[in-house]
Amino acid sequence: MNIVNYLSEKARKLTPYVAGLQPKNLGFIKLNTNENPYPPSPKVTEALKNADIAKLKLYPNSDSSALCEAISERLGVKPENVFCGNGSDEVLALTFQAFFSGKDNIIMPEISYGFYPVWSEIYDVTAKPVPMGEGFIINTRDYKSGNGVTLANPNTPTGIALNIEEVEDIVKNNPDGVVVIDEAYIDFAKATSAIGLSKKYSNLLVVRTFSKSYSLAGLRVGFAVGNNELIDALQRVKNAFNSYPLDILAQTGAKAAIGDIDYFEETRKRIIETRMKTVDNLNELGYDVLDSQANFIFMHAENAKELYEYLFSDKILVRYWDKPRIDEFLRVTIGTDIEMEAFIQCVKQFLKEKPMKQQ
Amino acid sequence: MNIVNYLSEKARKLTPYVAGLQPKNLGFIKLNTNENPYPPSPKVTEALKNADIAKLKLYPNSDSSALCEAISERLGVKPENVFCGNGSDEVLALTFQAFFSGKDNIIMPEISYGFYPVWSEIYDVTAKPVPMGEGFIINTRDYKSGNGVTLANPNTPTGIALNIEEVEDIVKNNPDGVVVIDEAYIDFAKATSAIGLSKKYSNLLVVRTFSKSYSLAGLRVGFAVGNNELIDALQRVKNAFNSYPLDILAQTGAKAAIGDIDYFEETRKRIIETRMKTVDNLNELGYDVLDSQANFIFMHAENAKELYEYLFSDKILVRYWDKPRIDEFLRVTIGTDIEMEAFIQCVKQFLKEKPMKQQ
Repeated sequence: MNIVNYLSEKARKLTPYVAGLQPKNLGFIKLNTNENPYPPSPKVTEALKNADIAKLKLYPNSDSSALCEAISERLGVKPENVFCGNGSDEVLALTFQAFFSGKDNIIMPEISYGFYPVWSEIYDVTAKPVPMGEGFIINTRDYKSGNGVTLANPNTPTGIALNIEEVEDIVKNNPDGVVVIDEAYIDFAKATSAIGLSKKYSNLLVVRTFSKSYSLAGLRVGFAVGNNELIDALQRVKNAFNSYPLDILAQTGAKAAIGDIDYFEETRKRIIETRMKTVDNLNELGYDVLDSQANFIFMHAENAKELYEYLFSDKILVRYWDKPRIDEFLRVTIGTDIEMEAFIQCVKQFLKEKPMKQQ
Repeated sequence: MNIVNYLSEKARKLTPYVAGLQPKNLGFIKLNTNENPYPPSPKVTEALKNADIAKLKLYPNSDSSALCEAISERLGVKPENVFCGNGSDEVLALTFQAFFSGKDNIIMPEISYGFYPVWSEIYDVTAKPVPMGEGFIINTRDYKSGNGVTLANPNTPTGIALNIEEVEDIVKNNPDGVVVIDEAYIDFAKATSAIGLSKKYSNLLVVRTFSKSYSLAGLRVGFAVGNNELIDALQRVKNAFNSYPLDILAQTGAKAAIGDIDYFEETRKRIIETRMKTVDNLNELGYDVLDSQANFIFMHAENAKELYEYLFSDKILVRYWDKPRIDEFLRVTIGTDIEMEAFIQCVKQFLKEKPMKQQ
């Protein structure tokens, strides 16, 4: 029997999300998956080195209570307003299952996080992708009367952010559905987080991650903040397929990370400064860069694919998508000053060999 | 608007699995969730203490390649025959999605792991529960011509195991579907693992966990072994909802655990010996105990609920289900000799206060 016959209809149809390369050999300057160039807080190292390994024989606290409490203290909400999962990917996947599964008219930007269409497919969600305006602008008037909305703010891969009034408009204009604001990159933004609004609107769910601003991509921790009944629903769905989701060390490390505000502020500030410097340098070279409020930039380049390959051959990894509307752009994660200097030098070299056709 | 209206149909209908208590305060003898009473191997401690915490800023290897390789070496299969996930719960949930979703006639024992019916509900699987024979025996003749089969071997909560010929019969008699053998407890059994058969039968998937025999419940690592096309299908489904599932420390710890065969053999042997001693002691007191090949026993007690509560008041936690057919049983995890001695003493005390009505 052909093995494909064993597969469920769903598994056969799936088009999985393709993540950025994680090269095994070192020596690459890795500017392709929006990781933080700085290591986690020394308090994370301390907490993990002091962790009682013998306790790993026991199941973890299934609700990550201590971590939820630390997050709630830090963000000024209650522990019952916080839900933790294995990275914001899992939190978002559960969110789709809990609030969007089987529904139509779930509004999302045409260009955004590549997982939204994949989850729509797997969880029987009829997405309503909204075309974007000139310059990849999200026009809040297009986000009305949905059975749900999902939106990355700042958006990816553009880095552009809505301000808090615009987010509130969307939340108000979609009273019949849950509005999910995916704030993976908000800590690098001037824009205000929507977490404050979650006390006012019971249909708002804000999703966050430890992967970017807390330098913990390798630990897989994300969370959601919202009305406690929305959080209950996420718990329900989570408990339906995995009794003990976050391992003990992940809970321990994330808790230590969120407790170290000074380190967080310092690394976040450094990344924002490096971003501004990088954008200036690219502008000087003649490149247009979208107004980024994230830890990456989205730069226009007529010959984006060639530039991608040129950088790759110099062991600098950035992200390129061969897709309509964005095939003349590169997404470049902000690394350290030294890494970005190497990136700029390589771009300069490329320009010497292949000058721009037009300014 | 009432928040229940935000929920998907699926989320509304869900009856989540209820896991055993994880008491926060210490002082309990915890014999209720089949954890290993011994700490993880010293090699796990060493590997985790030496882990490079700075690397947590990067995403993990998304396929857990190094861990899959270590598992494959240990079990005599190829790395492409191994799939890793966040505990066997996640591996099994993905298995249901990949092979059973949307199908009917998925055969499973009437009494088995409580998650099977929950996953059936969430993933649109029409389960065909098979009534069990006298003494909770699984009769292989009842497991034929399904669109899939899922079976815990040894079974839970009974602890009873099929021998390898019986497992092979089931695999042969269900050529049109995937047969999932959930071997969470096989390392405590006389029965042979079905992993060897997976080379012969492309419809066999064996699921395992690090939670029990490797003392790593707190690290959340499970895996599946099978034909590489079945493994590919699991990867596909996994990649559709979470790009980087196992965190770096979980991969590191599990890899160290599977490399320490001596420690594994020693702790496993100790648990089997303690189980035999515990069964003897209970038999002497007049209790019938099913023939367990797991790290727990399923003992008959007319007044099971009372005994459960008596033990609880003495700070000994075991598992009781108020459900038809099993409401006169307790499932008791095998702890250390000292813990089981305390358990037996408490049962003796109970018998003094409430002697058995009949032998």
